[in-house]
Amino acid sequence: MFEKLVEKVHQKGVERIYWKNIERVLAGLFDTSNFWRLVDHADMPVPYLKVVLEVLSDEGLVRVEADGIYLTDKGKEFAKEAGVAPHVEYKCPACEGRGVAFWQDKEFYRKFVEIAKDRPGAIQDFDQGAVTPETTISRVLHMHSRGDIEGKEIIVMGAEDDLTGLAIALTQKAKKVLIIDIDERLIEFDNKWIKELGLKNAEARVWDLRNPYTEEFLGKFDVFVTDPPETPAAFKAFIGRGIATIKDRGGVGYFGLTLRDSSIYRWKQFQKELVEFYGAVITDIIQDFNHYMNWDYHGNTVAARVALTEQKVPDFIWYKSAWYRIELLPGFKRVNDPISDEVFYLDEEGSTT
Amino acid sequence: MFEKLVEKVHQKGVERIYWKNIERVLAGLFDTSNFWRLVDHADMPVPYLKVVLEVLSDEGLVRVEADGIYLTDKGKEFAKEAGVAPHVEYKCPACEGRGVAFWQDKEFYRKFVEIAKDRPGAIQDFDQGAVTPETTISRVLHMHSRGDIEGKEIIVMGAEDDLTGLAIALTQKAKKVLIIDIDERLIEFDNKWIKELGLKNAEARVWDLRNPYTEEFLGKFDVFVTDPPETPAAFKAFIGRGIATIKDRGGVGYFGLTLRDSSIYRWKQFQKELVEFYGAVITDIIQDFNHYMNWDYHGNTVAARVALTEQKVPDFIWYKSAWYRIELLPGFKRVNDPISDEVFYLDEEGSTT
Repeated sequence: MFEKLVEKVHQKGVERIYWKNIERVLAGLFDTSNFWRLVDHADMPVPYLKVVLEVLSDEGLVRVEADGIYLTDKGKEFAKEAGVAPHVEYKCPACEGRGVAFWQDKEFYRKFVEIAKDRPGAIQDFDQGAVTPETTISRVLHMHSRGDIEGKEIIVMGAEDDLTGLAIALTQKAKKVLIIDIDERLIEFDNKWIKELGLKNAEARVWDLRNPYTEEFLGKFDVFVTDPPETPAAFKAFIGRGIATIKDRGGVGYFGLTLRDSSIYRWKQFQKELVEFYGAVITDIIQDFNHYMNWDYHGNTVAARVALTEQKVPDFIWYKSAWYRIELLPGFKRVNDPISDEVFYLDEEGSTT
Repeated sequence: MFEKLVEKVHQKGVERIYWKNIERVLAGLFDTSNFWRLVDHADMPVPYLKVVLEVLSDEGLVRVEADGIYLTDKGKEFAKEAGVAPHVEYKCPACEGRGVAFWQDKEFYRKFVEIAKDRPGAIQDFDQGAVTPETTISRVLHMHSRGDIEGKEIIVMGAEDDLTGLAIALTQKAKKVLIIDIDERLIEFDNKWIKELGLKNAEARVWDLRNPYTEEFLGKFDVFVTDPPETPAAFKAFIGRGIATIKDRGGVGYFGLTLRDSSIYRWKQFQKELVEFYGAVITDIIQDFNHYMNWDYHGNTVAARVALTEQKVPDFIWYKSAWYRIELLPGFKRVNDPISDEVFYLDEEGSTT
């Protein structure tokens, strides 16, 4: 029953959509009329969701109003016939569905919250938008329980608006923590705290990831952590370069990947590159691990412009990403080319930069 | 510092080990002297663990006693110098680290426990060993929240000692549930309950997965669920055939994969096949999702014979596996060859059959 709808979406120039994407939108509409919550349920790039909703609207299956998006009676009937069931969730409320609970180290959590309260605000130019403190702490506890913090040399590459690097340094358990980011404000913020708290073996430094790494970085770390924008160029800059920092004997990488700025087709391409090209093995994919706070510049993003309704500024967490852990087995591949800044942050699937 | 140890393990014929495996064994030994808990921490095939322990013992780093395995003073010093940190865990206690909590549908859980109490015992010939009821219920709730139960045509292939198929049928939400297993006792058990409770659209049938599927199975389902032994032949039989049941437009697969009967090198090979050969994309890998109860025939397995210590029968859950979810995008590949029964259940990495 979805074939006709899929074809119409394809005709509108969006190729990387299949029936499951449309099913998920319909399932989401049984639960919400809010565009942003629908993005959360639908797990697809915002610009694609816009096109799907336009097609569903053309077919009389949904009604787009200023205050939200609704299934029409025809839409409800269609969904029922197609066997679409309402969106349900059984996420563990204790750990917000991560499997690791941030409150398992309360002192660490409290300390981090105190420090993070004065962090610099998000800047659109750098695709910033920080995760919640609960996310950052859960990342560190997850890494620690996988043996990837204590005694390790760790590089945190970009996305330091999340303060993941500073949080790792706070544990005082790593052998070395090097935090690099393009944003001077964040680097200053980190270095201030590193100095003030006397955090040993930690350093923050301004660096633009589009430039190749020097010898100082290549093959020198046990673990890299990053949170790239989802374009292929950014994947290469963040993940590819992250892999290039790993020691010959192998190591570990952590990063977020979302289905809200990237299609499932692109995930497949990324996974193929990870396993086949780079020689990595994926050990964890935890959906909706990373919860992003709403950012000040949201009203000025593609996402906000394509929102269809007047619900421009979400007041709840709608942007989430999966948390990947990979291991690099001996023989993995290092790549360290310069990266063009074309389509670095934004392309046809991205919308939140 | 690990290079010499890795080389010695390689010399003993175990190639698929790298430094991280040895690190994990040492980290585990800071936490436990119990062989079975060490298996749980080390995430490596039991026969490989045996060889690693032999090498560590030859080098004077560990001491193997009848009551357990201990780091020697030399071992502790080595571990400290090599930056090995004790194994720690921050698993959410509320959901046992799954991110989905079985108690989120108490009535369902209670009903299932009542039914499962009389299930047939595990048989070694079929590589059986059931997961806990909490695991089975969490699987179903996870599937349901990902939109993969309600209105769907589902095939559950083997491993019905877990009663995952019966649990899905109990929800009464699927369009169709077909349960196949080689073990008549389980099929009878399921059909008895399907009849007694009047579970609509559910059927259990005896089937040997080594035989190719008939037209009745191929391309007819939205979702497959299975829990294969970890040999390449079994992967092909269970996962490959599972994929062959999926409709042209695409669908979803769920299965368990462990690092206790399979090396990280084999995981890489499986992932390559999934993404590159079959055309799947991996959406979830949740470590330690599946908890296996101890099985009656444990004393008679390779694992028990290689245990080194006299701690033959674990009285806690030590065998866990990761829970994978994959999506099949249009254009995925169906394979339906007959499967040889050589190395179907057991090979150099397997030990618990």
